[in-house]
Amino acid sequence: MRIAFAQLNLVIGDFDKNVAAILSRIRKAKEEKARLVVFPELAVCGYPPLDFLEFGDFLRRSQDAIQQLAKECHGIAAIVGGPSPNPVPEGKNLFNSAYVLDGGSIVSIINKSLLPTYDVFDEYRYFEPGKGNSCIEIDGVKIALTVCEDLWNEGEDPLYTAYPMDALVNEKPALMINIAASPFDYDHAEERLRVLKKNVQKYKLPLLYVNHVGAQTELLFDGGSLALNGNGEVAFTLDYFKEDFSVLTLDNGNWKPGSKDTSSQKLPGSKIRRIHDGLVMGIRDYFGKLGFSKAILGLSGGIDSAVVTALAAEALGPGNVKVLLMPSEFSSKHSVDDSVELAGRLGISYETLSIKEVYQQYLRTLAPEFKGQPFNIAEENLQARIRGMLLMALCNKFGYILLNTSNKSEAAVGYGTLYGDMCGGLSVIGDVYKTEVYELARYINRSKEMIPENILVKPPSAELRPGQLDSDSLPDYSILDKILYQYIELRKGPSEIIAAGFDEALVKRVLRLVNTNEHKRYQTPPMLRVSPKAFGLGRRMPIVGRYLS
Amino acid sequence: MRIAFAQLNLVIGDFDKNVAAILSRIRKAKEEKARLVVFPELAVCGYPPLDFLEFGDFLRRSQDAIQQLAKECHGIAAIVGGPSPNPVPEGKNLFNSAYVLDGGSIVSIINKSLLPTYDVFDEYRYFEPGKGNSCIEIDGVKIALTVCEDLWNEGEDPLYTAYPMDALVNEKPALMINIAASPFDYDHAEERLRVLKKNVQKYKLPLLYVNHVGAQTELLFDGGSLALNGNGEVAFTLDYFKEDFSVLTLDNGNWKPGSKDTSSQKLPGSKIRRIHDGLVMGIRDYFGKLGFSKAILGLSGGIDSAVVTALAAEALGPGNVKVLLMPSEFSSKHSVDDSVELAGRLGISYETLSIKEVYQQYLRTLAPEFKGQPFNIAEENLQARIRGMLLMALCNKFGYILLNTSNKSEAAVGYGTLYGDMCGGLSVIGDVYKTEVYELARYINRSKEMIPENILVKPPSAELRPGQLDSDSLPDYSILDKILYQYIELRKGPSEIIAAGFDEALVKRVLRLVNTNEHKRYQTPPMLRVSPKAFGLGRRMPIVGRYLS
Repeated sequence: MRIAFAQLNLVIGDFDKNVAAILSRIRKAKEEKARLVVFPELAVCGYPPLDFLEFGDFLRRSQDAIQQLAKECHGIAAIVGGPSPNPVPEGKNLFNSAYVLDGGSIVSIINKSLLPTYDVFDEYRYFEPGKGNSCIEIDGVKIALTVCEDLWNEGEDPLYTAYPMDALVNEKPALMINIAASPFDYDHAEERLRVLKKNVQKYKLPLLYVNHVGAQTELLFDGGSLALNGNGEVAFTLDYFKEDFSVLTLDNGNWKPGSKDTSSQKLPGSKIRRIHDGLVMGIRDYFGKLGFSKAILGLSGGIDSAVVTALAAEALGPGNVKVLLMPSEFSSKHSVDDSVELAGRLGISYETLSIKEVYQQYLRTLAPEFKGQPFNIAEENLQARIRGMLLMALCNKFGYILLNTSNKSEAAVGYGTLYGDMCGGLSVIGDVYKTEVYELARYINRSKEMIPENILVKPPSAELRPGQLDSDSLPDYSILDKILYQYIELRKGPSEIIAAGFDEALVKRVLRLVNTNEHKRYQTPPMLRVSPKAFGLGRRMPIVGRYLS
Repeated sequence: MRIAFAQLNLVIGDFDKNVAAILSRIRKAKEEKARLVVFPELAVCGYPPLDFLEFGDFLRRSQDAIQQLAKECHGIAAIVGGPSPNPVPEGKNLFNSAYVLDGGSIVSIINKSLLPTYDVFDEYRYFEPGKGNSCIEIDGVKIALTVCEDLWNEGEDPLYTAYPMDALVNEKPALMINIAASPFDYDHAEERLRVLKKNVQKYKLPLLYVNHVGAQTELLFDGGSLALNGNGEVAFTLDYFKEDFSVLTLDNGNWKPGSKDTSSQKLPGSKIRRIHDGLVMGIRDYFGKLGFSKAILGLSGGIDSAVVTALAAEALGPGNVKVLLMPSEFSSKHSVDDSVELAGRLGISYETLSIKEVYQQYLRTLAPEFKGQPFNIAEENLQARIRGMLLMALCNKFGYILLNTSNKSEAAVGYGTLYGDMCGGLSVIGDVYKTEVYELARYINRSKEMIPENILVKPPSAELRPGQLDSDSLPDYSILDKILYQYIELRKGPSEIIAAGFDEALVKRVLRLVNTNEHKRYQTPPMLRVSPKAFGLGRRMPIVGRYLS
């Protein structure tokens, strides 16, 4: 049987656009004489639709979209993800379903059994677990069709009590098809391959796996859809960070190219390359899907804003990125020089607006209140906030989106000014630790020095008071990032982290900073997620609490 | 049997404090010769602990706290909520449990079966559903012990497929005990009573229901714990919005006072009184639990800031509230006069800081960029942002928390300036529609005109350009709020709202405003939740999407 798989970048709630994209691949698959074409999980409405799933109108439009697609399926079958109503009154009102469309109508609906409800996933918020699924059949070929998580109950400490494939395999299917919405993180490609291979080995069946690609606010989908032979070998991979399409033929448990443009296996690249490609896609889709084209950001002369500028220039084109240099009385000359040099190398336009006069005027206005008080964080934050206000003023006047340049280390310990450098529509590197930001800079400079070397080698400073360095208030980032990783990614407690060899007082101080800065992170822009544990959607913490604080 | 119930205001993760609070009630109950004392759901760690439940250290401390409490239970039994480990590898690693402590140890653990995962609840994120629970027994008395949601599967369209009491009732218990963490909204007291009565009538058993009280960031718990006789009558109610404690005696299916200070039924008051009391508690606990005492806010002369000031003065004391008047060239004289009058009546101190000079300086700094551009929202937002910056400068200098004064109507349609009037540590009335803000003002003035009448009768204006009125950009609030209620609370689609008699173009415009302003709400402070559908934790929407936008 010739089977096509289509890895698409869909838009949440844009039914017309999604239907058009899916239809064009149904037609293409038919032209290429495929009998079946497979699309990702919840493809008609985009993933994750979140609470739009609670709106009857949204659900009706999803179902209308499925009907519209079904009508076009003559001479070709399609598997398309979409929500479907639960006919039983007890339980949630929806299933997360794979619709099988053939002969102009819906011929089967397979419901997802295992509903991921952890990290960025909230599926049990909306869906009832599917029960009692059977294999589908196309031209006499039995297919064990499952939705994403249904293949992920595995390991020593499995999350669920059921293994949906166990029942399906008894029906003796010829292959497994899994439609997915499996978000990217820098470790995910290997993890995905490991889990899918394990299924192939356990059930001794070839597998076709179809994933989303593209960014949905903070969630990045890297694609990487793949076909595994019955022996567990990877036969074909669709591309990473791009829409892709291929036709394959299943022949005695092995996948063969089904059309001339079916290329073989693609690789996701190194960790830093993946982060880079994910962030570029994340910026591009955030702007593109919202209908914006132009970004603005402040260039401080430091590594964070330099990296974000380079990523934005790649994502949007240098002509669509504008940077502001906003020196104060505490700015060093190299900050301005390095920024000008960077803008020149990237080919982007910059303007310089001094914040000195506005800052002095604030101090005069505040003088009756501040009289006799020493310079403190209030004056430091004022400077950061003036910069935020100037950037936002240009956004409001000219329609830019402000890109935020805070990194994960800063976001973790609250080393940033709310309504100042924490402003922005999108946080580009909020899930990238400072030590990884340096790696990203080196990667950006891999073939040509785009980011001036001086920016990479100078000691980090916020330049909000004379001679200030990050190291005045924070431990060395090489130590800080390791402690943060233990606490945030690995969820270790203080005693475990101290036992791993870190200084007790330092560990307690860092964990306290993380926990007492929850109120700041609550108000940050969405952060493009590249790690297995990012701030935002996937990490939910109380603001008011007294634990390690 | 004499049974005590203790409605406590606990702190998330403050194990020492929570244990001390619980122990003091165990001792009190013993002094009053109770055989059993009942505490709320997840009492040892506070509710909701959110992702702290993913930390082994947090779980160990929760279990240590339970052990510590168990040791003190001699001659008295206690029922205390806490997380417990799931011994089976399959499924989630935790249960949401009711521990029964007696004779110095844990004698039973009853696991919650129905895990609320909707609106503000995320319980399936952490917990495995309990299965196969039995009644507990104390001195030969069988008790059907359940945790919160286990009594809530009811109605025409029940959320779950199981009814945990159905099995327990077969064991012929003498009463039901339900430990809860059931957050407040203005309709919840009636709804709770309806559901609990239905259980009493269905199972023909008296019921003791014990809830949390107090605020946990945005979530408010109103208490209202109660004892229902076997015939469905309310026998006793603990107080609303306060810690409370009572001892009762169960006598032939009816509850009798068990000590002299057991008062009878308390009522939650009118909708607006409940909102008022909830918001006052919400402010007080936000400050108290974070260790802050002093609030600051900007008084514009409008109704929103007036109401928030009055609520803050009540919650924190007038001496702990400071207001800033920050007139611009567009401010009317009455704005200043009314604000001064309000501050005087409330007995709070105010300062006046003009924003004119800073605003003019921003325009001079921005002149090279803004040259030839007409006045637009950029200049309007600048003014709002300068006010935000001045308030934040005082916070940073003197340790105030800034109270945000945006209402739900504004938050819904994005009528507010990010980093301007949308700043703050806590949004007090972000879940209160503008029309309800007027009702709140009337309630605050119920016995004495605290808020000058002029503030209640003048047309709402942001005063960011000459002669500006809210009605220039928005429909009348009496219409807007009705459309918003249909869309936000009732989740109706455009065709249903139009069919209810609203203008088609207006409905489409309002829904579009709600959906395209998700990016602004993403960055707002936490909003005290008083309605069944508040922005924030309980309403999760994509920022990037194309549905009704």
